[in-house]
Amino acid sequence: MSEVTTHIYYCDNPAHAIEDALASAGAPQLFVVADDNTARMCLPLLAAAVPSVAAATVLTLRPGDEAKTLSAAESLWRQLTDAGATRKSMILNLGGGMVTDLGGFVAATFKRGMPYINVPTTLLGTVDAAVGGKTAVNFAGLKNQVGVFAQPAATFISTCFFDTLPERELLSGYAEMLKHALLEGPEALAAALDCDIIALDPATLLPLLRESVATKERIVAADPTERGLRKALNLGHTAGHAIEELALEKGALVPHGYAVAWGLVVELVLSHTECGMSTQWLYPVAACVRRLYGSMPVECSDYPRLLALMAHDKKNTSPDTTNFTLLEAPGRPRIDCTAAPEAITAALDIARDLI
Amino acid sequence: MSEVTTHIYYCDNPAHAIEDALASAGAPQLFVVADDNTARMCLPLLAAAVPSVAAATVLTLRPGDEAKTLSAAESLWRQLTDAGATRKSMILNLGGGMVTDLGGFVAATFKRGMPYINVPTTLLGTVDAAVGGKTAVNFAGLKNQVGVFAQPAATFISTCFFDTLPERELLSGYAEMLKHALLEGPEALAAALDCDIIALDPATLLPLLRESVATKERIVAADPTERGLRKALNLGHTAGHAIEELALEKGALVPHGYAVAWGLVVELVLSHTECGMSTQWLYPVAACVRRLYGSMPVECSDYPRLLALMAHDKKNTSPDTTNFTLLEAPGRPRIDCTAAPEAITAALDIARDLI
Repeated sequence: MSEVTTHIYYCDNPAHAIEDALASAGAPQLFVVADDNTARMCLPLLAAAVPSVAAATVLTLRPGDEAKTLSAAESLWRQLTDAGATRKSMILNLGGGMVTDLGGFVAATFKRGMPYINVPTTLLGTVDAAVGGKTAVNFAGLKNQVGVFAQPAATFISTCFFDTLPERELLSGYAEMLKHALLEGPEALAAALDCDIIALDPATLLPLLRESVATKERIVAADPTERGLRKALNLGHTAGHAIEELALEKGALVPHGYAVAWGLVVELVLSHTECGMSTQWLYPVAACVRRLYGSMPVECSDYPRLLALMAHDKKNTSPDTTNFTLLEAPGRPRIDCTAAPEAITAALDIARDLI
Repeated sequence: MSEVTTHIYYCDNPAHAIEDALASAGAPQLFVVADDNTARMCLPLLAAAVPSVAAATVLTLRPGDEAKTLSAAESLWRQLTDAGATRKSMILNLGGGMVTDLGGFVAATFKRGMPYINVPTTLLGTVDAAVGGKTAVNFAGLKNQVGVFAQPAATFISTCFFDTLPERELLSGYAEMLKHALLEGPEALAAALDCDIIALDPATLLPLLRESVATKERIVAADPTERGLRKALNLGHTAGHAIEELALEKGALVPHGYAVAWGLVVELVLSHTECGMSTQWLYPVAACVRRLYGSMPVECSDYPRLLALMAHDKKNTSPDTTNFTLLEAPGRPRIDCTAAPEAITAALDIARDLI
């Protein structure tokens, strides 16, 4: 299932493209996986325009990342079994990253793999989870601990579901767009820093999404199962995940994208100290992150725990070293970097000063 | 994970090959997955000869196909997590098909995939489950309902664990060898019919295993995720699975290989009536099956239930038709055959007469 055969469609309204894709796939049965929110707010829009979606069997999940569990997957496998789904049936995932991660995992493992398509409904899901074929559930308190790489048959990207998204969701997605721009190069970074994500209208946003997703697509196509280059997409995420988990331990949930934005600043500081990246790019990114996301909820007393959380990251290949993706410059990632605890501590200090 | 990169080693004693492979893989941690029986009877042999196996963390399962459950997988994921396993850790599956199917599934899904190697300890596991990358657990009462295609990094085939296998296990494995010979061609079939599986000494068996596995390997390499040609390996299994499930419903467990042997005869009859296969090959196979496996535990009154079970087989792509692999002749499989209920009923009648 690791072939990169995904087709990505960009459209103001995805209904026609979805209808055409479903018709040409010719799946004998269609199942829509949605969470309670997308089933209520997004599914009616799609069902009104796509007859085969209106006729599909709808499988719903509780919303939120805490619902991305093995027992939710088990419930979907059971419902597919009871409904007589076969390997040629199709799943359409309608939702944010939780829905596409979980629905993709269920599709990839049901009878050893049935096809699935993603219709992301959030900005973060669009630029992150819906493309690239990473599927998973959380397990044993760890994010995405059980999963597989399995490419969707198609992904449909539009802004038609974004109207009702809260600002913090748009900001979460924007953090991943910043990351892609950092991986793409100076020009893309300047464009990303220049745009006002909150005020953007769909007509301006769609081309930006296309560029951002194209960066991810290019990297994934070169390395679908993350043996090398794909690790570039982890930029900001080693520190980001640790900040997210630390906040969770302190009982203060922070959105994934906010943690990634702060993590980007930490890792750009490390990119400067460890890989010689010019501060020319660090300062404007830090200023943008400070303006949009506020300061990082980290104190000096948190450093030992943050370092321990980074050392347990899934991306590490041995239990004793912390793996980072850093930048020599925008567009020039360096994967498999390690940094001494002192360097990480210094970077945390500088990042807290900057944001 | 669907690349076919498996190396298959054939050796009288696999210790040196395993030691070399583990050394060159350089995994930071090794986990051995075994069932209670193979942990007791096979692991000491291997651990005595392979230092890294002696030093490995051993994860044990209850024996038997009924232990191939999602909750057993969950237990293994949890133990791997607790032991700090990473994506570069390695699993060595030591056992029959239950162990290699379940251990392979756990490896393929832990952190989206860690490498695993198979050391099959039964004849059936050697010629069937340990090669080809099908991994799975049983779910909702259905065999292999949840799983993925994920090739082992290596498989080590030897006869050194076969000494203590009961006759019925050897016969189970032999049924799959018969199937491979039917798929290979007249010469391989004649050789398979000619050999006495019970009396065979290891030195004679190893080359036969090599030929049998080579047939499977050739077919899997051409179609790792069973979109076409690989379905040839289902020869005998549509009828066989139904016979196995019927027996289970009647409270009389029959070994998988016995059901496959009977299923082969049913499907060779269908191959004659539906695809024109000469009876020249049907009669000697039926005679061999009758001699080794006895008659099929199926009565006329079971036909409706058997037909319903065949119609629910996982290999079917729509809920209403039954999919068979049949033969035009030994070595010339025809996949995606369907047969009318009357034709299946007639084939069951003739098969019962023959065996």
